[in-house]
Amino acid sequence: MIRLDAESLRLYLVTDRALCGERGVAETVRPALAGGVTIVQLRDHEATTRELLDIARELRDITTAAGVPFVVDDRLDVALAVGADGVHLGQSDLHPVDARRVAGTQLIIGHSVSCIDEIEAVAEWPDGTVDYLGIGPVFATPTKPKAAAPLGIDGVREVLDGCELPAVAIGGIKDIHVAPLRAAGAAGVAVVSAVCAAPDPAAAARALLAAEEL
Amino acid sequence: MIRLDAESLRLYLVTDRALCGERGVAETVRPALAGGVTIVQLRDHEATTRELLDIARELRDITTAAGVPFVVDDRLDVALAVGADGVHLGQSDLHPVDARRVAGTQLIIGHSVSCIDEIEAVAEWPDGTVDYLGIGPVFATPTKPKAAAPLGIDGVREVLDGCELPAVAIGGIKDIHVAPLRAAGAAGVAVVSAVCAAPDPAAAARALLAAEEL
Repeated sequence: MIRLDAESLRLYLVTDRALCGERGVAETVRPALAGGVTIVQLRDHEATTRELLDIARELRDITTAAGVPFVVDDRLDVALAVGADGVHLGQSDLHPVDARRVAGTQLIIGHSVSCIDEIEAVAEWPDGTVDYLGIGPVFATPTKPKAAAPLGIDGVREVLDGCELPAVAIGGIKDIHVAPLRAAGAAGVAVVSAVCAAPDPAAAARALLAAEEL
Repeated sequence: MIRLDAESLRLYLVTDRALCGERGVAETVRPALAGGVTIVQLRDHEATTRELLDIARELRDITTAAGVPFVVDDRLDVALAVGADGVHLGQSDLHPVDARRVAGTQLIIGHSVSCIDEIEAVAEWPDGTVDYLGIGPVFATPTKPKAAAPLGIDGVREVLDGCELPAVAIGGIKDIHVAPLRAAGAAGVAVVSAVCAAPDPAAAARALLAAEEL
């Protein structure tokens, strides 16, 4: 089991089967890891559970080899079945308190928030319920059309002010936003299109990491 | 935790939110239990996980009060989170061997089969992987338009010949089919429309049980 450390949230890849296109999810994740992605989340709301299980098992192997945490979106059952390091839970997913009770203390649990109220809710749960936050959307994004209103970089700073959990910013993020988002308090950035839709996922990942210094 | 016994599969109710209509799922299940339903499965592929969690918790309470096993379709995570008695896994769901490993020996695991090949696959898994089978569709049914070709009652008899696991027949079943299906080797019948869409779910359940003697 791979645990989160201070570096794990620097460059968080969320998969999207359609954007990965013909090369497939595994052959997108593999070069992305070579390019420096620090954590991988499998997200696929179209797959059957059995399909999700198969791709999760493949990503589990690839991420283990890279020494990088692997997280499954929404499906705690799939995460447990393949020995993933964690599960990421949005506001419409399993409740994190229930998930922690079922999964025990070792599993990484991430949780999506889009406003201060949702961060305050997390603070009322038992200590250790959530390991990290996903905050967004920073910008509007076609990969999540039903998302809440975009926060912008200033909005991220406001929502994270005083927040003790490490947070990764998500939603329409490109290279130029990485340094400002880290300055606004994010431990790192989560990307979907910027890597999954890139012709060269390794180069795209390297460019995002290099942009920390811009 | 409520275990399966010889009577548990006699009348197996599978919920369908659309068919339950305005009275809702809980207020369909409650009278259906009063009418004699012997096991309840929550099936809802449209709900978000959080919605599923909420209705599962409600059905958990209602079925506990009735002393009847409660099973969640597909979602082992939701089943574990609400303390359901079991999970029902179709051919596209979590693999039963994985589910058994995650869930331990106590949880009821049901599995859908539609042909002899799928029953033979079950026989190759470790003993105790699956507790009961759902066999079907017996007849074509609008509640599962993508299902395999209907078996008919003779097909159920052929597929169950020599099968050691208790099986519940499913798919377009009405009162008149109950006695022939039991004679064909089914421990009971599973219904969706016949109870969920009935104006009086208690009366519909009673009629199905009375039809065992026809």
